[in-house]
Amino acid sequence: MSDPESVPSAFVDLACRLTEVSRPILRRYYRKKLDIIDKADESPVTKADRECEAALREAIVAAFPEHGIIGEEFGAERADAEYVWVLDPLDGTRSFITGRPLFGTLIALTRAGAPILGVIDMPILGDLFLGVAGRPSTLNGEPIRARPCAGLADAYFSTISPLMFKGEHIARFERLSGQAKSTTFGGDCYQYAMVATGFIDLVVERGLGIYDYLALVPVIEGAGGFITDWRGQALTMKSEGAVIAAGDRRILDQTVATLGA
Amino acid sequence: MSDPESVPSAFVDLACRLTEVSRPILRRYYRKKLDIIDKADESPVTKADRECEAALREAIVAAFPEHGIIGEEFGAERADAEYVWVLDPLDGTRSFITGRPLFGTLIALTRAGAPILGVIDMPILGDLFLGVAGRPSTLNGEPIRARPCAGLADAYFSTISPLMFKGEHIARFERLSGQAKSTTFGGDCYQYAMVATGFIDLVVERGLGIYDYLALVPVIEGAGGFITDWRGQALTMKSEGAVIAAGDRRILDQTVATLGA
Repeated sequence: MSDPESVPSAFVDLACRLTEVSRPILRRYYRKKLDIIDKADESPVTKADRECEAALREAIVAAFPEHGIIGEEFGAERADAEYVWVLDPLDGTRSFITGRPLFGTLIALTRAGAPILGVIDMPILGDLFLGVAGRPSTLNGEPIRARPCAGLADAYFSTISPLMFKGEHIARFERLSGQAKSTTFGGDCYQYAMVATGFIDLVVERGLGIYDYLALVPVIEGAGGFITDWRGQALTMKSEGAVIAAGDRRILDQTVATLGA
Repeated sequence: MSDPESVPSAFVDLACRLTEVSRPILRRYYRKKLDIIDKADESPVTKADRECEAALREAIVAAFPEHGIIGEEFGAERADAEYVWVLDPLDGTRSFITGRPLFGTLIALTRAGAPILGVIDMPILGDLFLGVAGRPSTLNGEPIRARPCAGLADAYFSTISPLMFKGEHIARFERLSGQAKSTTFGGDCYQYAMVATGFIDLVVERGLGIYDYLALVPVIEGAGGFITDWRGQALTMKSEGAVIAAGDRRILDQTVATLGA
C-alpha cells in the first residue's frame, strides 16, 4: 500500500506536463509589441494570462476531472474537492510588461487546503523548480538546497519593490534593509526559487494572494528552507499574504522579531 | 572609399565575437556554489569577472594590437590610442550573486573618446544587443526600436535600486517615481536594453562608471532613444555617471526638468 501522505506520481507528472502547456503561450507574448500581436483590445499581458490559464485548466480537467481548480483569472471550480490546483499563470506582470524574463507560472496542488506540491516555472529561462511534500526539491530534476545563514548581518535580502511597503510598513522595511548585508529588488516568484536554491537568504513581501504563495511552500520547504507569514505561522488558504521566506531558521526568527518590533 | 565616419565592419565583427568569449566563462560561474567552483580564496563573482576580462583583452589584442583597452578589473593600456575598447565583463554583480540572470557584459568601442559601438550582451538569456554609430541597433540581428511616450504619466520608469538615491537625491527619486505610471527595480544593463527595445520608457541612475554607460550609448541612440547625463548633456569619458535613458525626447526633457527642480 502506498503511504497515505505521499503525493501520487501521476499528480507530479501532470504538474510538470503543465509547464509544457504554459511555456509556449507565455513565450509567444513575451517581448512582443502590442500592435504586432493582433488587433487586440486587450493588453498582451491580459491575453497571455487568460490564454495560459484556460489551457492549464483544460489539461487538469482532462487528467483529473474530480480535482478542484482555483485560478487567478477564471476563479474557482470544485473548490471543495480533496485535491485542488491553485494557478497563477503569469506571476510578475510588471516584469512581463517591461520585458524582464523573471516572471513565472505558479502551480500548487493542495490536499484538504494544505499545499503538497508546488511548481515555480520560468518559461523564458527554462527553469522548472519543483517541490513535492516528502521529497527534496529540484531544479530541472537536480536537487536544490537552501543555504545556512547565521544572522541578518550576513543575509542577502530581496523584495520585489520597496514601494510595496507603505504607511506603517515603511519602518519595517527600513529596519530589515538596514540590518541585512545586501538588499536587492525585483524578481517576482524567482526570488523565492533563489531562496530554495541557496542564492538569496531572505525574501519579505506583503499583499500576496493564495495564487502567489501556495506554490512556493513545497519548493522552499523541500529545499530545507522556511516560509511563513509575518508572525512565523504556516501559510494556508486563509493567510493574509504577508510572507517571509528564509533559507535558515535563524533568519526566519530574526525577521519575525524585526517585523514585530 | 569608405565613409570616414562609418565603423569598420571588422570592429563590429570582433565586438560580436567577444561575446562568444565571455559567455562560456560567465555561464560556468552562474548559480554555482562557492565550494563547488574550486578551493577558491576569491568569490565566484571576482573569479568570473577577472577571467572574463582577461579573455576579452586577449581577443582584442590578438585582433587589433594597436587599439587601447580600458577594463574595470585590469585598468588601462594604450588609453591614448585612436580606438579604445571599454569593458565591463560583469555588469550587475549583485544580480550575479543572487542568481538573477539579468547581469551582462558591456563592450564599448570609442574613437577619440566618443562611443561609436556598443554591445550589451546577456550571457544567460542569449540576447546580444548591438549598437553601431550610423546603423539601426539590433537584438540578435533583428532591428530594435525605442517607443514613443508622451509624458511621465504614461512612462514605465525603472532603476536598479531606490537605495542608489541617497541624501538630496531621495526627493528626486520620489518626484520621478510619483509622476511615472509605473516604477520597477532591478535589471542592471538590461534595463537600458529594454529602453532600446521599447519596453521601458525611462531609466535614471547615478554613480555609474564609464564601463557601465559608454556601451549603452550606441545601443540606445541607434534605436532612436536618448541617453544623457542628468542635465541632458551627452555622455563622454568625463561624465559624472548620473544617467538618464529615455525612449522619447519628451520623457528626457521632462526628466531633466524634474531632476533639476
